[in-house]
Amino acid sequence: MSQQPISGKTIGRLSLYRRVLYGLLAEGERSIFSHQLAALVGGTAAQVRRDMMAVGYTGSPTRGYDVQELSESIGRFLESPQGQRAALVGVGNLGRALLAYFSGRRPKLSIEAAFDTDPLKYGRVIHGCRCYPMDDLVSKIRELGITIGIVTVPAESAQGVADKLCQAGVFGILNFAPTRLWTPSVVYVEDIDMTMSLEKVAFFARQRAMEKGSI
Amino acid sequence: MSQQPISGKTIGRLSLYRRVLYGLLAEGERSIFSHQLAALVGGTAAQVRRDMMAVGYTGSPTRGYDVQELSESIGRFLESPQGQRAALVGVGNLGRALLAYFSGRRPKLSIEAAFDTDPLKYGRVIHGCRCYPMDDLVSKIRELGITIGIVTVPAESAQGVADKLCQAGVFGILNFAPTRLWTPSVVYVEDIDMTMSLEKVAFFARQRAMEKGSI
Repeated sequence: MSQQPISGKTIGRLSLYRRVLYGLLAEGERSIFSHQLAALVGGTAAQVRRDMMAVGYTGSPTRGYDVQELSESIGRFLESPQGQRAALVGVGNLGRALLAYFSGRRPKLSIEAAFDTDPLKYGRVIHGCRCYPMDDLVSKIRELGITIGIVTVPAESAQGVADKLCQAGVFGILNFAPTRLWTPSVVYVEDIDMTMSLEKVAFFARQRAMEKGSI
Repeated sequence: MSQQPISGKTIGRLSLYRRVLYGLLAEGERSIFSHQLAALVGGTAAQVRRDMMAVGYTGSPTRGYDVQELSESIGRFLESPQGQRAALVGVGNLGRALLAYFSGRRPKLSIEAAFDTDPLKYGRVIHGCRCYPMDDLVSKIRELGITIGIVTVPAESAQGVADKLCQAGVFGILNFAPTRLWTPSVVYVEDIDMTMSLEKVAFFARQRAMEKGSI
């Protein structure tokens, strides 16, 4: 891995390139030029080439990038060779949907445990993932070597859960709770704020409808 | 509404301020200074004051902002007085979870219809929302005056769904499918890319663990 600091935006684009490359592979494409890849993700060829330099992969000027090799290079850059383990906290509607969604999607990134306060869920296996009591969170995460937490509890419980995850030793949190989490600076937090996103769409939809004179 | 072009980031912050203000109201807080609000959302006081100028609300230099009045001002700025209607397309695990999540959260922003290709779901009411056949999407969206689409179908079906939503006349799409949508420029698209976000957390978690010498 490069020693240069790398931005969240770059990592996001690499994740996107890889997904597009997987799609091309499935369609039998063998090679692609930077401007073609750029068009598929809505970026520029120069941006694609800069991002691939970060990964350390260079294509051929005449044939472009080898699709298979490039997707593997990005995978080696993004993922740990031995894989990483995540835990999901809060097995409500959203938590269950995420267990189904992420299940088996990436072999090197698996959700190995779920936690909830509802005793009826203890011991159950939901979309391939076992559910444990919230009280066992710290010990279980340490036992399983989990480094990533996914928070799908209501806003009012989220900070308490984040505190426990940090205490257990995770280094990253994907937060779906509609609240800001306070964590030690060593822990990386990424928020997915669905209400904010929907309100944003609603605002711009209304603005555009007004411009068109529809409302 | 202001005639100045306003960025998605500003709208996102306004949505966040309002949520924080709702929380303060519930705790009985009557007023707040810009630097206090800034601390609660992780921003700066200058930023908060600029954002509030866009909304057209000014606080008192000695007492700060009135919490109730400010949350109402932001609401009037973000939302349509007569409300806006959304439709959700794809009633799988994620779609159902989102119906539950958004149900009743904002009185002026409601999901009025869901669509799926599974005949077993037709006519069912799921978390308060009726499910219709995918074939009725265009006519039903027009009939109900829906202007926002939420896409929760698999990647391979998403573009076809987006085409139908645009044909039906929506002006905004919240896209959960892990693929880029191509739409007319008049339609605002916001992506929530959960796989990309999880891969980002995994990358930075691993980087931080390596810095700490844990792995």
